[in-house]
Amino acid sequence: MSLDNNWFTEQASPTDCAFSLHIKQKLHEEETPFQKIAIYETTEFGNLMTLDELIMLTDRDNFIYHEMMSHPVLFMHPNPLKIVIIGGGDCGTLHEVLKHTTIEKVIEVEIDERVTRLSEQYFPSLCESNTDPRAEFCFQDGIEWMAKAQENSVDVIIVDSTDPLGPGEGLFTVDFYHNCWRVLTAEGLLVQQSESPLLHLPLLQSIHETMRQAGFKTTRSLQFPQCVYPSGWWTATIAGNGDLTQFREEAAHNKSFKTRYYNPEIQKASFALPNFLIEGLPD
Amino acid sequence: MSLDNNWFTEQASPTDCAFSLHIKQKLHEEETPFQKIAIYETTEFGNLMTLDELIMLTDRDNFIYHEMMSHPVLFMHPNPLKIVIIGGGDCGTLHEVLKHTTIEKVIEVEIDERVTRLSEQYFPSLCESNTDPRAEFCFQDGIEWMAKAQENSVDVIIVDSTDPLGPGEGLFTVDFYHNCWRVLTAEGLLVQQSESPLLHLPLLQSIHETMRQAGFKTTRSLQFPQCVYPSGWWTATIAGNGDLTQFREEAAHNKSFKTRYYNPEIQKASFALPNFLIEGLPD
Repeated sequence: MSLDNNWFTEQASPTDCAFSLHIKQKLHEEETPFQKIAIYETTEFGNLMTLDELIMLTDRDNFIYHEMMSHPVLFMHPNPLKIVIIGGGDCGTLHEVLKHTTIEKVIEVEIDERVTRLSEQYFPSLCESNTDPRAEFCFQDGIEWMAKAQENSVDVIIVDSTDPLGPGEGLFTVDFYHNCWRVLTAEGLLVQQSESPLLHLPLLQSIHETMRQAGFKTTRSLQFPQCVYPSGWWTATIAGNGDLTQFREEAAHNKSFKTRYYNPEIQKASFALPNFLIEGLPD
Repeated sequence: MSLDNNWFTEQASPTDCAFSLHIKQKLHEEETPFQKIAIYETTEFGNLMTLDELIMLTDRDNFIYHEMMSHPVLFMHPNPLKIVIIGGGDCGTLHEVLKHTTIEKVIEVEIDERVTRLSEQYFPSLCESNTDPRAEFCFQDGIEWMAKAQENSVDVIIVDSTDPLGPGEGLFTVDFYHNCWRVLTAEGLLVQQSESPLLHLPLLQSIHETMRQAGFKTTRSLQFPQCVYPSGWWTATIAGNGDLTQFREEAAHNKSFKTRYYNPEIQKASFALPNFLIEGLPD
């Protein structure tokens, strides 16, 4: 069968598979100085945001990505107080991070303020914490922000970026990771979304190598399903200077907030990697 | 963007998402008494088999499904000697099961012999064990086979079926599961592919309920990524009469065969379910 014009299709180049969502209507479209943003209403996945024709999130399944980009790394760090999010302008990651009541400050650094303004309008549930007094918004280039940030001043950096093409490209470089390493405290942790294990293994390998070249002593990937991203299977990669098997499991069991995907068993399970990944990634 | 005619698209009705693969050429197509079988050469996923326009498998990612339909249940059963596979005519599951050298006999029951003959031609690596003397092929209806099978005679039944529509429909019923229960030994285990947790939760719930109505005391789902199936995320559900947390972990660690996805940590991780599934499924 072929799909009529009422579908949004993202082709995952160069892997030659594609994912499509049935669209009820286009709600908004604009060209910003950084990218083309579009918002659609789908028939079964709620609202959809695309950036430069790539699917960023839908109402239906964004909870998995946002929970897995925030809770595992936050329950790994022994005492995360100050967090920086690079990208993530839809504020879904920010919303999850702020569920941790022990966190004192979260700086949300998004290059394109329009992503956040449109998320407030079309994904209001992700933006419920935007007025939390612990949240600070900096609408500027995350690379510049990190280059100028004070050393040894942040506990966890979450790089909730687009793919390593277009505006997100500089967020996968030695220079950027080295600045993250410099800005993090000795116990600090960096987490970066790191694409599909099935489709983008060379890129995932390169992320590990680049993080280590930048100064991090240890790196470790975790994996989770993500229906609307290519292959439906995604990774995040954590970098630090010590043991990345640490886990405040009791705190995770006793967490005071609700999650739909995450739980402590999921955290442990997410680090169990298939053989082809164990063989393909550094120890 | 829209896709040209060189793509095979499967629309996951009624959930209104679709997955497509770029096609180099159609290698074969035929109507059997049971279904329409087509084989394509894709640009990046190797060969593709479809049944009634639904994607069954590709060279690139079938290893995950076949390993996860076989090794977890076989390493749960204390001593699996006699196995029955219902469906699975492509022989990928059979190939994985026969890697267990302690297994004495595997009966492969496929309603449509043409699926197997075409798999031998277009997916030869999946059929490498078809001449194993422990393998017996019965090209007949799995429902009938099970209704006539001797009680208390099989250790593990693997239902490697199509969706609960068309020829596979009867493999999701109380009658069929009751016959499985009757045919299994007291320690016997049934595993059934059980669709997407994100898209088909009511169906997954119904599979648990139906298995329990049929006589099984305990049921448990495991999950794994499967790129070419709707949502890229899939489950298998195991039914038995006792503790479904049993695991011959040492045997799994010492297994004499290679796997690309499966390992003992993956087995444990596959049973860690997200909160929305824990809440949605019976204890």
